[in-house]
Amino acid sequence: MSLANSNQELVLEVADRFRSVFGSTPDSVALHEPDFDGREAELLIDCLNSGYVSSVGRYVTEFETELARVCGVKYAVAVVNGTAALELALHVANVGADSEVLMPSFTFVATANAARHLGAIPHFVDIDPDNMGLNPDALRGHLESIVDSKRGVALNRRSGRRIAAIVPMHTFGHPVDFDRLQAVAEEFDIPIIEDAAESLGSKYFEKPCGSLGMVGAVSFNGNKIITTGGGGAVLTNQESLAQKAKHLSTTAKLPHRWEFIHDQVAYNYRMPNLNAALGLAQLERLEHRIREKRALATFYLDTFKSIDGITIFKEAKGVRSNYWLNAMILDQEVANARDPILTMLNDSGILARPSWKPLHTLAMYRECPRAELPVTNDLHSRLINIPSSASLRAKLIPRTENDRRY
Amino acid sequence: MSLANSNQELVLEVADRFRSVFGSTPDSVALHEPDFDGREAELLIDCLNSGYVSSVGRYVTEFETELARVCGVKYAVAVVNGTAALELALHVANVGADSEVLMPSFTFVATANAARHLGAIPHFVDIDPDNMGLNPDALRGHLESIVDSKRGVALNRRSGRRIAAIVPMHTFGHPVDFDRLQAVAEEFDIPIIEDAAESLGSKYFEKPCGSLGMVGAVSFNGNKIITTGGGGAVLTNQESLAQKAKHLSTTAKLPHRWEFIHDQVAYNYRMPNLNAALGLAQLERLEHRIREKRALATFYLDTFKSIDGITIFKEAKGVRSNYWLNAMILDQEVANARDPILTMLNDSGILARPSWKPLHTLAMYRECPRAELPVTNDLHSRLINIPSSASLRAKLIPRTENDRRY
Repeated sequence: MSLANSNQELVLEVADRFRSVFGSTPDSVALHEPDFDGREAELLIDCLNSGYVSSVGRYVTEFETELARVCGVKYAVAVVNGTAALELALHVANVGADSEVLMPSFTFVATANAARHLGAIPHFVDIDPDNMGLNPDALRGHLESIVDSKRGVALNRRSGRRIAAIVPMHTFGHPVDFDRLQAVAEEFDIPIIEDAAESLGSKYFEKPCGSLGMVGAVSFNGNKIITTGGGGAVLTNQESLAQKAKHLSTTAKLPHRWEFIHDQVAYNYRMPNLNAALGLAQLERLEHRIREKRALATFYLDTFKSIDGITIFKEAKGVRSNYWLNAMILDQEVANARDPILTMLNDSGILARPSWKPLHTLAMYRECPRAELPVTNDLHSRLINIPSSASLRAKLIPRTENDRRY
Repeated sequence: MSLANSNQELVLEVADRFRSVFGSTPDSVALHEPDFDGREAELLIDCLNSGYVSSVGRYVTEFETELARVCGVKYAVAVVNGTAALELALHVANVGADSEVLMPSFTFVATANAARHLGAIPHFVDIDPDNMGLNPDALRGHLESIVDSKRGVALNRRSGRRIAAIVPMHTFGHPVDFDRLQAVAEEFDIPIIEDAAESLGSKYFEKPCGSLGMVGAVSFNGNKIITTGGGGAVLTNQESLAQKAKHLSTTAKLPHRWEFIHDQVAYNYRMPNLNAALGLAQLERLEHRIREKRALATFYLDTFKSIDGITIFKEAKGVRSNYWLNAMILDQEVANARDPILTMLNDSGILARPSWKPLHTLAMYRECPRAELPVTNDLHSRLINIPSSASLRAKLIPRTENDRRY
């Protein structure tokens, strides 16, 4: 059987399996949509009635307090979106113009944009196929080949620029191999700033994602596990960094009874109270949502395990993924079935997508420094994200007495 | 009578007048608070029920359409706040790193921050005491003294930098003397980008503020005449600029069925649908709000006209101010009564504030280029903003058959 035929057979088999799951003519199955099954309406109306819908109000404070608790950090600073959160996280970690920020190329473009907004240069490192996040061995090897350390400052000897931060991203909710990354980071005296945009509620062993590095950033965009409409937050255990992030997010205005004194160029990044009210209601449902999403992942693992040539991505040992987006990985031999499967699924109203085009292949980041990126390029060529809304659990899996196993 | 005594008398007289207006022990009178007297709750709940609360949804589109109509422009692009709107407006007008942006020093810090976020340098010019906005004569005089024009590019011969834009701001809702500014701008081939953050609904003769320059920016922060919680918009009649602003506000993602291709470093600045739902309900009440605020201004003008030494600021002839914030101006001879009056008012629960500390006196903007700024310094020393919420109209002025005069 030719490769072309084998691919065609795989596409048909995948199509059949999806039809058995979603019915033969689904209206439309979203990649990820939010659920509003808690107190969302109640808190929104209460917020409106309070008169405080903007940058001041009790919901912002309550949301921050509850978020910090859930994420196992002392401080959370709520802002307008995940990109802003990461930009502030990098800012308070002293990432500035003409420094370099090590990050995966296998990530959403916001990771690099946040660095660029500060004038810093993204510098791409390869990922680990086991968790799709930064690979500690690749990172160490690359740093060994390019870094001159001088008085605790890691200099890229090729560019002459300071390497100011390492930014791992927990892809699709799967925690990176943090302890081993941390060992490399410490060896080279570079702080870790966590891009936890996709991984709210995920845990690396017992520790929540977002709490692992010096500072972390999460996102509450509409496609995330919980949403505030648009929103994000900076997470940290260091009071001085939290204060700095909050100060920068509120136009760097100094406290004064009436004077407008601002002490640095800063941002209008504070999350509005209205969005925080929605967020607080959503946060109350986070653990439920994670249970549903983990059950959905198990269902996908079961449903597709008998098809040769594809694998549903599974969390690594010892971690808890929030399974933000489920990923179907094609074997290398059938990688060119990716686009036919994407076409077939999208044509059937089942929204699916490839991983982000690797950042080092985008026009504005093509010239950025980078390590070899074989895993990034390979994985991108054969990965498909499939519908992952938490609400699919109830639609696809009849409740049984075994529900507790999830 | 000594100056000190005369001041003390003025403070007491102002205090008496405010007590007669607000009662002797008001709980607390805000400087400016929003009203939610329209369909706010209805549209928020409808938005929630639609499932679309984030960057996609019909409310964003409807809000933009309605806003464009109200502002008399072809295109409106809704974003997360006024600072982001101004940053995008400057960006699409080709303001970039190391160019200079002419602006008042008498403005909120966001005007300068928006330029700095693009790497541009604020360059301060004085204001006109008749409208508190950029003074066309001061602008012309300054440009004549510093500009070398080369092939349609205005170069600051002192700094060698390109002067990329003129950014008038309509202070407290009062339109600038636009036609005369425009004449200067055309003479020197510099585009005008309007900071209309405070002036939604104000009109320069028949033209709405925000529609006057090449691009305009408005704000819907919680303290503005209408609010989206946090929000802003870019306004323009030029399709290419509107498309560019929208593209930049949505991570510069190119349309594709599933691929993530972004063609430049961009932003996550799109206004969430939830905030747009609130904004649409608010926009429906804008004309009502303007009537109430103009009536309140007339009330203040009447109430304080008999006190020597103070003047309530009044719109210039031929324009319609939205009277976002009412301003009480002290005569120069009694300027040092400003702080005692601020103390007295705030101690009484009547929130009042001085104008923003002029930007050229803030640490991060102290070294920026500037013209002479005598009016800015003078006006700052003797201006007090007083409570200006639209809802005060109904509280302070009994409805009469004459209501239509407002």
